[in-house]
Amino acid sequence: MQNIGFIGLGIMGTPMALHMLRAGRNLHFYARRPEVKADFESLGATYHHSPEEVAKHSEIIIINVATSNDVEEVIFGQNGIIHSAKPGTIVIDMGTTSANTTKRIAAQLRNKRIDMLDAPVSGGEQGAIDATLSIMVGGDAAVVKKAMPIFESLGTRIVHIGDHGAGQIAKACNQIIIAETIVAVSEALHLAAQSGVDPAKVREALLGGFANSKVLEIHGKRMLENNYKPGFKANLHRKDMHLAIEQANTVGANLPSALHAMQCIDRLVLKGHGELDSSAVHLVSED
Amino acid sequence: MQNIGFIGLGIMGTPMALHMLRAGRNLHFYARRPEVKADFESLGATYHHSPEEVAKHSEIIIINVATSNDVEEVIFGQNGIIHSAKPGTIVIDMGTTSANTTKRIAAQLRNKRIDMLDAPVSGGEQGAIDATLSIMVGGDAAVVKKAMPIFESLGTRIVHIGDHGAGQIAKACNQIIIAETIVAVSEALHLAAQSGVDPAKVREALLGGFANSKVLEIHGKRMLENNYKPGFKANLHRKDMHLAIEQANTVGANLPSALHAMQCIDRLVLKGHGELDSSAVHLVSED
Repeated sequence: MQNIGFIGLGIMGTPMALHMLRAGRNLHFYARRPEVKADFESLGATYHHSPEEVAKHSEIIIINVATSNDVEEVIFGQNGIIHSAKPGTIVIDMGTTSANTTKRIAAQLRNKRIDMLDAPVSGGEQGAIDATLSIMVGGDAAVVKKAMPIFESLGTRIVHIGDHGAGQIAKACNQIIIAETIVAVSEALHLAAQSGVDPAKVREALLGGFANSKVLEIHGKRMLENNYKPGFKANLHRKDMHLAIEQANTVGANLPSALHAMQCIDRLVLKGHGELDSSAVHLVSED
Repeated sequence: MQNIGFIGLGIMGTPMALHMLRAGRNLHFYARRPEVKADFESLGATYHHSPEEVAKHSEIIIINVATSNDVEEVIFGQNGIIHSAKPGTIVIDMGTTSANTTKRIAAQLRNKRIDMLDAPVSGGEQGAIDATLSIMVGGDAAVVKKAMPIFESLGTRIVHIGDHGAGQIAKACNQIIIAETIVAVSEALHLAAQSGVDPAKVREALLGGFANSKVLEIHGKRMLENNYKPGFKANLHRKDMHLAIEQANTVGANLPSALHAMQCIDRLVLKGHGELDSSAVHLVSED
């Protein structure tokens, strides 16, 4: 039976780790929060005191932590994976992190004959629970093939985008499109409201045509109802937009509308609304 | 049998007028192009030498011309509708024109006891052919009710948005969302390409998630294939964006992302690409 290591049992990681258990895999995990430890132990998973200990027992290690720094700490830190992982181990970063950092980490792991994949997801908490995530994968084709059964137990659309970091670049594209579309819908609803026209009627009319999108459907509704319960928190979308703009700056891409969307999310967060859904950009898009 | 007047038998007007004939209505039309005249006469429609003559024979008059100036000419010009339309006539402007001008025209017609509706559409030529347009209607509810059978023979989503001009405001919202989403998708595909990642793979991954939209589906494909056969011409989208920004300026709405999208389309047109589909913004969005 395959031994899967799992590090990072947050909002996304928890349902994803549960799918590993349901698929009958041995789950080895490390978690900082004690309540997570007890829950997963009661389901038959094995707790370890560090990423290093997890790596000792795992052929594939899934990391689902917030930032590139956290990934580096989990891998290269004092009790990191690097100190015990056997050659042939596959490390999969499923969080949204920096493409540049991913490339560097993959090269360092390669020196130890450890394989890495970047495999960020979209679909949110519900997608993680339902195992309907979209998974954007970067890395070697042979390694992607080995990890495919894992991905297939987590998502319904799995695309091998390209080499190391390519998954993160696809995710950056995803995040800028969503942010820019949120701004677009927000501006349209502001234009309607300020023109004395019912924005709900406008949204209703637009849902049938070329202006339709998931963002108009779901975030447009949030804006009309002024209900910004997340969803996807502005704090996290902000982090992702900064990663995307960092990537754009690395390759010299000029993305003025993405930059504007990032600044809207920045403003929202700096006003103290980072815990709201990122569609709350509607509150500041006209400032 | 109801007598319908039709003025403006262009790309959109022609299939819409054909639906009037198919529904068994008497069609009275005015057209500047002689080939249109012969075609419609052969189908049993009656040609007239001016909008004034059309109005003499019609209870409802549909106008489908390019600009607000054209609408004013058709209504108030030397041989305009105003000189012969009977009280109770309904004039419907189905083109994309200025909300402010619409309000003024409606007020002037009201003095002659002529009713007006603004009823711009979305769905493009194919939607007009298939009678699956979305129709955004502004004007009095009682008049909308009288015109509803007409709308129902042309579209599948008919929303009475509000008072005179409200249809045009909804259309402006539609056009800015489409333009801004085109820019968003374009920026994402540029970011991927410049990062050395296959934009087609990125689009494929994103189609399954929250970044999905009609624009990603259809215009994203156009961008990947570098195929900008219209579709909806940049010249027309440009006109509509200027109307939307005019409306924003009238009510003091601040729409920086819409303004940026307008300027992208401006640049595209000024480079001589006005006859391409407006998704050709991809050619200039990084300039």
